[in-house]
Amino acid sequence: MIVGNSLDELKKREAAYEIIKDSIESGTGSQLYDLTGLSGGFIAEEEELDLLQTYIGPAIFEDKLQDLGIKHMGGEKIFALNRTSSGILASILALVSEGDSVVHFLKAHPAHPSIIRACNLVGAEYKEYIDLDKFNIENNTALVIITGSTMDHQVLDEESFKKVIEMAHNKNIPVFVDDASGARLRTAIFNQKPACDLGADLSVTSTDKLMKGPRGGLMAGKENYINMVKAKSNEFGLEAQAPVILAMINALKEYNPQNLRDSISKKDKLFSFLAKSFNMFDETPTGVMVSKESLKKEVNSKVDICNLSDTDLCFLWSMILLKFQNIITIPAVSMPGASTTIRVDLSSNDSNKLEIEDIYEKIFKSFNQLLEVCVDENLSRKIIYNL
Amino acid sequence: MIVGNSLDELKKREAAYEIIKDSIESGTGSQLYDLTGLSGGFIAEEEELDLLQTYIGPAIFEDKLQDLGIKHMGGEKIFALNRTSSGILASILALVSEGDSVVHFLKAHPAHPSIIRACNLVGAEYKEYIDLDKFNIENNTALVIITGSTMDHQVLDEESFKKVIEMAHNKNIPVFVDDASGARLRTAIFNQKPACDLGADLSVTSTDKLMKGPRGGLMAGKENYINMVKAKSNEFGLEAQAPVILAMINALKEYNPQNLRDSISKKDKLFSFLAKSFNMFDETPTGVMVSKESLKKEVNSKVDICNLSDTDLCFLWSMILLKFQNIITIPAVSMPGASTTIRVDLSSNDSNKLEIEDIYEKIFKSFNQLLEVCVDENLSRKIIYNL
Repeated sequence: MIVGNSLDELKKREAAYEIIKDSIESGTGSQLYDLTGLSGGFIAEEEELDLLQTYIGPAIFEDKLQDLGIKHMGGEKIFALNRTSSGILASILALVSEGDSVVHFLKAHPAHPSIIRACNLVGAEYKEYIDLDKFNIENNTALVIITGSTMDHQVLDEESFKKVIEMAHNKNIPVFVDDASGARLRTAIFNQKPACDLGADLSVTSTDKLMKGPRGGLMAGKENYINMVKAKSNEFGLEAQAPVILAMINALKEYNPQNLRDSISKKDKLFSFLAKSFNMFDETPTGVMVSKESLKKEVNSKVDICNLSDTDLCFLWSMILLKFQNIITIPAVSMPGASTTIRVDLSSNDSNKLEIEDIYEKIFKSFNQLLEVCVDENLSRKIIYNL
Repeated sequence: MIVGNSLDELKKREAAYEIIKDSIESGTGSQLYDLTGLSGGFIAEEEELDLLQTYIGPAIFEDKLQDLGIKHMGGEKIFALNRTSSGILASILALVSEGDSVVHFLKAHPAHPSIIRACNLVGAEYKEYIDLDKFNIENNTALVIITGSTMDHQVLDEESFKKVIEMAHNKNIPVFVDDASGARLRTAIFNQKPACDLGADLSVTSTDKLMKGPRGGLMAGKENYINMVKAKSNEFGLEAQAPVILAMINALKEYNPQNLRDSISKKDKLFSFLAKSFNMFDETPTGVMVSKESLKKEVNSKVDICNLSDTDLCFLWSMILLKFQNIITIPAVSMPGASTTIRVDLSSNDSNKLEIEDIYEKIFKSFNQLLEVCVDENLSRKIIYNL
């Protein structure tokens, strides 16, 4: 194994940084293309930044967020959180007590781990359902949770969504929606309504997912519930801070569902190109991906002997993409333990700087280079660690 | 009562905003002086802001924070949190279990409420001591907490600090220091060492208190403890986000204890001026303050009949300071329920824009105006609500 443990992963990450820093410092940073889909954004004007220096700034931004947030998510009131996970924690702290049950409905397992952790923290029983026929809300249930779109972008249909809300409300139980990517994926791509318009009492989305905002959680909902969550958040420091709120405002202003829809058609085009040359690609809602297993299989079908492990192949390809094609994908820059899947996300800001043909070309070239390099373990090591 | 409930307080706050917004929009915003000491800051260069748009930016800022943070706080490793309260929560989640005891030593009651709340959340027993002779660490204690400086800037002496750490370590119990303002107040003004240099295992400070940083918590400590806190923080979304970390870095770069020491001598000068004209002022470590009781007494000694309540007098004076002297103090702009004490903080960024003589003059003039207005309840109301 070339990258065999966490320390190796850190070394690999540092090597990737080195390349990126050199590129930024030599002034060619603008020729780097971040296609991770994870970069979010931070849009701010000079005068807005000046306002951050004042006592009044934060309050002004909080006020401005209300209209834009409600336009994006529905509901009566908006509250910004440090992360979507903070919003989940705050809601469970506010609405669930020891011994209560929390029931969660989603399209497919697994649920986001922060939901289960927060339930454990307050001492609540947690139950998870993916089948509406089996879905059951016990009488001691304090909160019903719906996940709009899973981490793997599995989207719940609107009928099931409404049915779960109806069942909860028939028992006077509030409904919280984890709509991290869903608030945009469901509405822009699947033509569904915002969760609050479907009757949810609270809904939270990630402002860095499928929009140009900072990492953070934007919550909408009924005023009384938002006030309860806000009070808990302020107690424990879960709310978003002013610089993050400012960047949320500007990302909401810039958000245009058409860009997301465009990324779908770009994705379709890229995928159709790639499918002609490769067997290893899968589609995501806004891009394409290659799992480590698929990559290993594809490589094995094209070279005689490659001794690299599947994860090493991912790291190597990601470093080749970075070093020779200026494309940033997750495995090159990720923290230890992250997924090694190679993804190209066409909703990334930088994807607009490239034609689909160029992206295809860069992927094609880099894969051929991967085939040449991967048969030589020493050379592979040199490229992965940028030696 | 003119400001008699939360709704009135919001109306008052909105009136203050109106004045500030008008001032900013008419281009005279630079003539406003924010002397609340609460504004923190957000210092960032254009190219740093550009880096925030990338996947790599956050990681680069996290790396940069290490050296600067250790220089400021000591310890082996640094971790940035969304707020000091988040750091307290994360530490207690990481180190304390149900049924454990947490023992807290501080100079004076009250402790910061987030400590007690976090103990309640995990089901730990909480005990608080201010007398070293009575201080006792039971055997089931999981964490000893020291507050370096209370919210009212009551600072613990270094000998007691070291003694408590020694007692905890004799029982192999880790020590967490809530050094919100203390990390600077203790070191710059009282010549004490950073908490980690005194042996603390973890220490957290507020980057918006007595320095030009954003609202946030900067934690230093032994690597193994920091790693435990970091893991818990990432689970629940308690860590600081990239824009906030960037602003922390620049505030740490700009931090100079001499500025803080200068604010003390400026404070001494201002206080000596004020003490000649008034009986109502008290000193804080970096400024002066007037409590509602002292204000009411001073006003009563100088006018025949004033029917305003003590809190209304505070709001009125704070609005007069804002409207006619361009000085922002907390009661004008605060959220419902906040303290109505009038403070002038000479460690505020804006205090450098004014001579001490000018500040004295503005306080003096505004107080005379307060005496004229406060006998007329209708006029007082007009000024408080900017009608």
